[in-house]
Amino acid sequence: MTIFANMNFSSKILEDAVVAMSALPSIGKKTALRLVLHLAGSQTDKTKKLIKALEALDTNLKMCQSCHNYSDHDICNICEDPSRNKRLICVVGSAKDVMAIENTQQFSGVYHVLGGVISPLEGIGPEDLYISSLVSRVKEMEVEELIMAVSPSIEGDTTIYYISKVLDGINLKISTIARGVAFGGELEYADELTLGRSIHSRVDYNKEVTI
Amino acid sequence: MTIFANMNFSSKILEDAVVAMSALPSIGKKTALRLVLHLAGSQTDKTKKLIKALEALDTNLKMCQSCHNYSDHDICNICEDPSRNKRLICVVGSAKDVMAIENTQQFSGVYHVLGGVISPLEGIGPEDLYISSLVSRVKEMEVEELIMAVSPSIEGDTTIYYISKVLDGINLKISTIARGVAFGGELEYADELTLGRSIHSRVDYNKEVTI
Repeated sequence: MTIFANMNFSSKILEDAVVAMSALPSIGKKTALRLVLHLAGSQTDKTKKLIKALEALDTNLKMCQSCHNYSDHDICNICEDPSRNKRLICVVGSAKDVMAIENTQQFSGVYHVLGGVISPLEGIGPEDLYISSLVSRVKEMEVEELIMAVSPSIEGDTTIYYISKVLDGINLKISTIARGVAFGGELEYADELTLGRSIHSRVDYNKEVTI
Repeated sequence: MTIFANMNFSSKILEDAVVAMSALPSIGKKTALRLVLHLAGSQTDKTKKLIKALEALDTNLKMCQSCHNYSDHDICNICEDPSRNKRLICVVGSAKDVMAIENTQQFSGVYHVLGGVISPLEGIGPEDLYISSLVSRVKEMEVEELIMAVSPSIEGDTTIYYISKVLDGINLKISTIARGVAFGGELEYADELTLGRSIHSRVDYNKEVTI
């Protein structure tokens, strides 16, 4: 009996590869089959390269002991970079967010990856996130400003609120990234919460920084 | 310097994995990044399972020495199955087509995978395909009928024509799968060639087999 009722595999090896591939997000069984047949029919060493890369990912990928971003070493490139301002920490939910902000080339501080946001519905509490290590960093490194760059949502706001409470009493500026209508976005399609906030947090025209 | 101008990787391991993953068809760099970050963040042994499956694919997957379908052994399950009619061979372009036909559960013969179709534009000639082994099989196994199930196209028709010429003089029935308007298809959207053929090859209503 095959896992895929409507797929007849002549080979268990093919079937296993399709099963493993379709365990990836957004890869359905038809896509998985196409990818696996592509690799099986490939004359190059594409499969070997993929195996090697995945093995390195599985075995050697580390988490930066300072900021919890993915890293090849115990401390990541960003944390080790002497030109980075260690007193300015940008707090993000995941390593993907670090990459997104790095791609803007607008930030010269360091990061702190929380590993998620507080979400009671999903059973994620503050103790499941890297919040205590953030507090230690703030105290030890004499951090001047925390830029909260968690995704705008109820959970994100809860997380920011929680962290601000935990850090209460420490001399520190806490800011959040600006929220508002996206560049190129149409006002009529912006949701009420975003539009309402963008009016509430309006910026003096002459002080607006233009990139 | 990174391969992806607009992606800043903090980790070479991550970058290598994204490069290897995006070498797969229809997987762009953003999708590859999402898949790799999913694997990196996965708490289960999903990556290990994928590596194992790909290693088996790379090392152990064989080609059936008789029909050239993918197989775990020297001879595939279908060719070894004693209940299969070895005198009825369905000729297909690729192993994917075998799977598609097997899924219909309408065919009880065996297959022959050509490994492509004759395509002068792409530099694929008859000698690049498993045609000579088909001729040997036809002669050795006293095959009664060849069902040509290559995809309907100019190249497919050329391939069928070539094979029929090569087998000229051998007492053998050669048929092609019926071509016509797909079940559930709208006449107005069928292309002229398909519709023209479906009229030309019209079937006596009382003789039509209903599944």
